[in-house]
Amino acid sequence: MMLTLLAKKREKQRLTRDEIKKMIDGYVGGQIPDYQMSAMLMAICCNGMDDEETVDLTMAMVESGDIVDLSAIEGVKIDKHSTGGVGDTTTLVVAPLVAAAGVPVAKMSGRGLGFTGGTIDKLEAIEGFSTALSKEQMTKQVRDIKIAIAQQTDALVPADRMLYALRDVTGTVSSIPLIASSIMSKKIASGADKILLDVKFGSGAFMKTVEEAEKLAQAMVAIGELVGRETRAVLSSMEEPLGKQIGNSLEVEEAVQILRGKKDGHLKQVCYVLAGNMLHMAGIVPSVRAAYPVLDSLIQSGKAMEKFREFVIAQGGKTDFIEDLSILPQASYQMEVLSEKEGYITTMDTHQIGMCASLLGAGRMKKGDAIDLSAGLIMHVGLGDWVRRGDRLAVLYTNKKEALIDASTLLRDAIKMSEHSVKKGRLIYGIVDKNGLHTE
Amino acid sequence: MMLTLLAKKREKQRLTRDEIKKMIDGYVGGQIPDYQMSAMLMAICCNGMDDEETVDLTMAMVESGDIVDLSAIEGVKIDKHSTGGVGDTTTLVVAPLVAAAGVPVAKMSGRGLGFTGGTIDKLEAIEGFSTALSKEQMTKQVRDIKIAIAQQTDALVPADRMLYALRDVTGTVSSIPLIASSIMSKKIASGADKILLDVKFGSGAFMKTVEEAEKLAQAMVAIGELVGRETRAVLSSMEEPLGKQIGNSLEVEEAVQILRGKKDGHLKQVCYVLAGNMLHMAGIVPSVRAAYPVLDSLIQSGKAMEKFREFVIAQGGKTDFIEDLSILPQASYQMEVLSEKEGYITTMDTHQIGMCASLLGAGRMKKGDAIDLSAGLIMHVGLGDWVRRGDRLAVLYTNKKEALIDASTLLRDAIKMSEHSVKKGRLIYGIVDKNGLHTE
Repeated sequence: MMLTLLAKKREKQRLTRDEIKKMIDGYVGGQIPDYQMSAMLMAICCNGMDDEETVDLTMAMVESGDIVDLSAIEGVKIDKHSTGGVGDTTTLVVAPLVAAAGVPVAKMSGRGLGFTGGTIDKLEAIEGFSTALSKEQMTKQVRDIKIAIAQQTDALVPADRMLYALRDVTGTVSSIPLIASSIMSKKIASGADKILLDVKFGSGAFMKTVEEAEKLAQAMVAIGELVGRETRAVLSSMEEPLGKQIGNSLEVEEAVQILRGKKDGHLKQVCYVLAGNMLHMAGIVPSVRAAYPVLDSLIQSGKAMEKFREFVIAQGGKTDFIEDLSILPQASYQMEVLSEKEGYITTMDTHQIGMCASLLGAGRMKKGDAIDLSAGLIMHVGLGDWVRRGDRLAVLYTNKKEALIDASTLLRDAIKMSEHSVKKGRLIYGIVDKNGLHTE
Repeated sequence: MMLTLLAKKREKQRLTRDEIKKMIDGYVGGQIPDYQMSAMLMAICCNGMDDEETVDLTMAMVESGDIVDLSAIEGVKIDKHSTGGVGDTTTLVVAPLVAAAGVPVAKMSGRGLGFTGGTIDKLEAIEGFSTALSKEQMTKQVRDIKIAIAQQTDALVPADRMLYALRDVTGTVSSIPLIASSIMSKKIASGADKILLDVKFGSGAFMKTVEEAEKLAQAMVAIGELVGRETRAVLSSMEEPLGKQIGNSLEVEEAVQILRGKKDGHLKQVCYVLAGNMLHMAGIVPSVRAAYPVLDSLIQSGKAMEKFREFVIAQGGKTDFIEDLSILPQASYQMEVLSEKEGYITTMDTHQIGMCASLLGAGRMKKGDAIDLSAGLIMHVGLGDWVRRGDRLAVLYTNKKEALIDASTLLRDAIKMSEHSVKKGRLIYGIVDKNGLHTE
């Protein structure tokens, strides 16, 4: 059977729903060996899949494991997913914000691979916080306080976990249908009614150009619409770190400052666009734009912060860090990185800045690696800024003193300057929905 | 390392000689797992390899094992290889013919996978015949009598054996660079100075069209020329079985009849073109055409037959079958297949005729399967023949009585007739050498 499918995909033919289903079931069941599946993944990388095949692949993956039933929770359940980047802490801001506005948030998150941890890692910077919730606990908590964030279990989309591990070691990660089905299968299995995606582009993102990001967004929106889940994708820039603070407890700190109304900037702007779209998709506001004053008032009134506090308490976390952020894990060593040059900042290699955070201890390179929750850096400059020699570019935080020199070199090299300023790209490039790309 | 190469080939980039060498060494050495190699093979199937990469792959494969040194044998050593088909017994005719003309033949052959056995299987139809020759035995025998045919050892191109086994189970057989490097690596490692290829096209060949066959021929000629071994390829038709007799001892019988001057037909014509080219490449005749009278006289004088007899004796075989062909293994059952229709034969599904021989016991479907040397069939009709109802199409030979009905149905279905005759394609389409394709 698999030989026929391999020959079809090699010859650029379509696979049928039934063929894809048998293939995924056979792989998860152990009847199809890795060496056949990896050849198929490469054939998909080279010859692609159309929207229908991608949906069939996604649904076959969804059906490989448990499917969460959120029907006991009233209201429109909207899940949000970001393709990831550096200083990308949107969940910690957006989830309490929209919950405070009345949208139920029942979110499953993962640990991160890469520069810094994932949402689950970041939440673990809060003393006592637990993300190991049963389905019943999660449902009850969302019904009570509108918000819960739980760790993904291994029972959710096992096909994705197996395929991802194989893609990772066979050079078959870069493929729109494979990326789209991986992300969407997890969102669909998580039980959301509607899905909002944040697809990043730029030097710190998986998709390096806005064109690639748009293609991925369109593929995912097509999957969502074909399976009856309204899906939108925000295309946002990762040409520089999104938040100023990079690292697990440093990112919790920045999220708290935004919820408290003490901090503005790119991270807050993207959080507003995401939260605004979620409120609009939930039918709470007539347009995305109409959501912004609602979000402002939730922050100014302290309701967003209050929701965050309720959420932390519900999941067993201590809340004293909210009043005194220095209670969060703190690194033993810090170092200022000063500019050796003068000029306008024209480009930032955000990937390299992420590597710098990782070198300081903030990330994990393979599953199971320990993370230093206190490690990371705070950026003091951004794209387009005028910098003088001796100006502070960033402050590094770590428990590995020996990493400071290499990390500071990495960071300095990642920032390019010129005597002429250049025009910055837009932070939000546009929104993709079933009608295509909308730019303002 | 392998991940970088996988990404390059996925993105249609060239691999360097060094990269290909490391990859093949790593795979043969067990450092590169099957699941990575199969992804690479699929990437090569989808995105191809240029001539230089194909040569580098071929030479890396050659260097994975022993390389035969034939320098102790005087004269130009020319190896011949056929891409295989049905009733394709050219070696048994060509080798003694050219040896009788003074061209040294030191040939390594394999067992066949597929419809009927390979040359080694066919020779084993001769009682006492041994193909397990050491290098020293082979060299001595070729110096003494100009001809030896030995079984390929496992030490010859182990990379090809490993890659072929993986290609077979991952849908990555059909790729010109992979097929070309597989064939050419074995010819080069076998120590030939010059290489003559017989590339088949048609329903009974691996290459279904003459265009595909030409591409494969060009790829192999390019490899040969780039490594300094003059290489030519004959493009010959496999739109119907080449010989009339299909099956191991049946093919030995037909070869003996041709060498004895008792049989003409397509098999003899192709053998003449192959032998003629070999004599020309060896510098014995000024043109291929000039070789034909030489070959005629070798047959008429009995010298070709005498060379065959010497060859059988040298390798331990009994020669009484030459006078009495009924001494070769004989099947217990035979059955005439009669035509149920009337008309001109317009097409023959040669692949299906091969399946018929295999069903009767003549072939093996996997390595190590036993072969029934006596099984097979004799065709009594060919393309373009006018056939009446009740005419004999073929006679089947087997020891598996129960296979006769299915085999006769297969055979009858393989032969299509029409009331109008159609123009037959050429038996020899042309010759490919370093200057391109030559058709007459």
